[in-house]
Amino acid sequence: MRATIFNGPGNIELGERPDPQIQEPTDAVVRVVLGCVCGSDLWYYRGESPHALGPIGHEFIGVVEQIGTDVHGIKKGALVVAPFTYCDGTCANCRAGWPSNCIHGGSFGNHGIDGGQGEAVRVPLADATLVSVPGSDHSDETMVSLVTLSDVMCTGHHAAVSAGVKNGDTVAIVGDGAVGLCAVIAAKRLGAERIIALSRNPARQELARSFGATDILAERGDEATEKILQMTDGIGVDAALECVGTGQSMATAFSIARVGSIVGAIGAPHGVEVPIETVIFRNIGLRGGVSPVRRYIPELLDDVLEGRLNPGRVFDFATDLNGIVEAYTAMNERRAVKSLLRIGTI
Amino acid sequence: MRATIFNGPGNIELGERPDPQIQEPTDAVVRVVLGCVCGSDLWYYRGESPHALGPIGHEFIGVVEQIGTDVHGIKKGALVVAPFTYCDGTCANCRAGWPSNCIHGGSFGNHGIDGGQGEAVRVPLADATLVSVPGSDHSDETMVSLVTLSDVMCTGHHAAVSAGVKNGDTVAIVGDGAVGLCAVIAAKRLGAERIIALSRNPARQELARSFGATDILAERGDEATEKILQMTDGIGVDAALECVGTGQSMATAFSIARVGSIVGAIGAPHGVEVPIETVIFRNIGLRGGVSPVRRYIPELLDDVLEGRLNPGRVFDFATDLNGIVEAYTAMNERRAVKSLLRIGTI
Repeated sequence: MRATIFNGPGNIELGERPDPQIQEPTDAVVRVVLGCVCGSDLWYYRGESPHALGPIGHEFIGVVEQIGTDVHGIKKGALVVAPFTYCDGTCANCRAGWPSNCIHGGSFGNHGIDGGQGEAVRVPLADATLVSVPGSDHSDETMVSLVTLSDVMCTGHHAAVSAGVKNGDTVAIVGDGAVGLCAVIAAKRLGAERIIALSRNPARQELARSFGATDILAERGDEATEKILQMTDGIGVDAALECVGTGQSMATAFSIARVGSIVGAIGAPHGVEVPIETVIFRNIGLRGGVSPVRRYIPELLDDVLEGRLNPGRVFDFATDLNGIVEAYTAMNERRAVKSLLRIGTI
Repeated sequence: MRATIFNGPGNIELGERPDPQIQEPTDAVVRVVLGCVCGSDLWYYRGESPHALGPIGHEFIGVVEQIGTDVHGIKKGALVVAPFTYCDGTCANCRAGWPSNCIHGGSFGNHGIDGGQGEAVRVPLADATLVSVPGSDHSDETMVSLVTLSDVMCTGHHAAVSAGVKNGDTVAIVGDGAVGLCAVIAAKRLGAERIIALSRNPARQELARSFGATDILAERGDEATEKILQMTDGIGVDAALECVGTGQSMATAFSIARVGSIVGAIGAPHGVEVPIETVIFRNIGLRGGVSPVRRYIPELLDDVLEGRLNPGRVFDFATDLNGIVEAYTAMNERRAVKSLLRIGTI
């Protein structure tokens, strides 16, 4: 089969991999319909984080082609959403609600596990990992939104849930990448009344507004802080969502968070220092991390299927596997928010 | 009146201060019955944190001697517990439940505000700040426990509440100072089933056990981590309470906390670095800080009055104002967990 291969920083290509086969009775083989490129793929693409060489991509939806003898909940022919990690659903971490930290789990598109940027994937622990999508003949718009449940939409949701966003809140989102934009959707869905999105990119500003942002700030750093404090009578926001992972974005999030609130952080950290004095002397907490996607998918799926959420609109570039290099470079050069990969048909 | 005065690091003395008078209609003057020395007093005593010169001490109970014309909830002659900060009860932070971060508040025993290590205190914003103690003729044991509600017991409670301690939890407490010992009490009160206290001091180990610790570990650092992971099937504890404020104690707390849990931290930070990779990749949150004591006192008061909680047992040294220097040195040299000051009579 054809699959995207990471050969080292700046070097990806469409290559060949053996067709996936059932190896364990708990496996399924999924033929990929839609995949995409994640902002976190750029970290290793740019050489800023380590990553195993080999197949990549961790977000996909597809059709189940084969199942192992021990797979009972997932049927052949079903349309499924894959979380970006597989999990057993029974370990102590899974039982506590943290499937992305499954003791027996792992990530798609890493350490030789098939990636979502290829034609098919062997999915370990399929019953606990995959979520079947009810219904059929979903519109293309719905299908494109479903693939965001693999990671980006659930990750934005995790930022909002971690920060404890609730009805009537004023929420600020630091970061206008795909996750930041999904965090706008999540904040709105959880009842936030005022949603302040930090963005200086006109297209992203527009998208943020359409997702529910009530205020857009082009300022950054101290200027953004000053503006947000002005907007909130000097108190700060009820929830600050950190959706970048840099030192500056974390500093901004803590500086605009009100006393007693929680910074919800999901950015993979690069040069981040947590301002412990702010934590302690202003009682501002920090929660978040790798999203427990498998826990969130069922909760968000209905909203997507019934058209209440349209996170698929974060994709502003689409190609097929032949365009994989351009899919990465468009995001790397910030010409695209997020690149969709149309890999197979339903 | 006589009051303890901070003249600089290592230099405190019993001095003279003007008798407090009502200055604002919202003031009360409280004659101090019991005060004490806080672990946080040692930071500036040792020169490790800055502190204004002048009156000190922020924990006290006493009898109301005078009230301003605008004080209606607090009566002359009442026995009152003072939180370590005063607050207006009406600002945005107070209304959100964070009275120790009151926008119009401040700390006792700092910046010229009378301290609790003296014979009397002018209490600003008395109605919102002070808590009247119901009943009379309280036993000495009860009185001594009441003074812990000014700070140390409520601070230990804040560590446990911040970490979300709940029924059946396994909780580890890093730090065997007075706050750490109170955190043992708080964890037990919130229903923790297994309470692991880290201490290498036999007297403190004994006290921790009597407060509800089920396991005592003398190990520190990596050895403590290894032991606790062994004790928890490699999973870690449901809640790690950081009650010291050093780099090592924070590192230990994060290393023993299970995936998805929260480190509850109340130690004033000195050289602390938050392991952001652990936050993000293990979904371990950080909450805590300056305890919202005024919010917690009513909740804990009944338990103290009815003898269910005896946090006063953390005092293992008692003196009067004449012994103030020894009260500090005993704690500074770790000969005492916490020094009680018997200042006046009821």
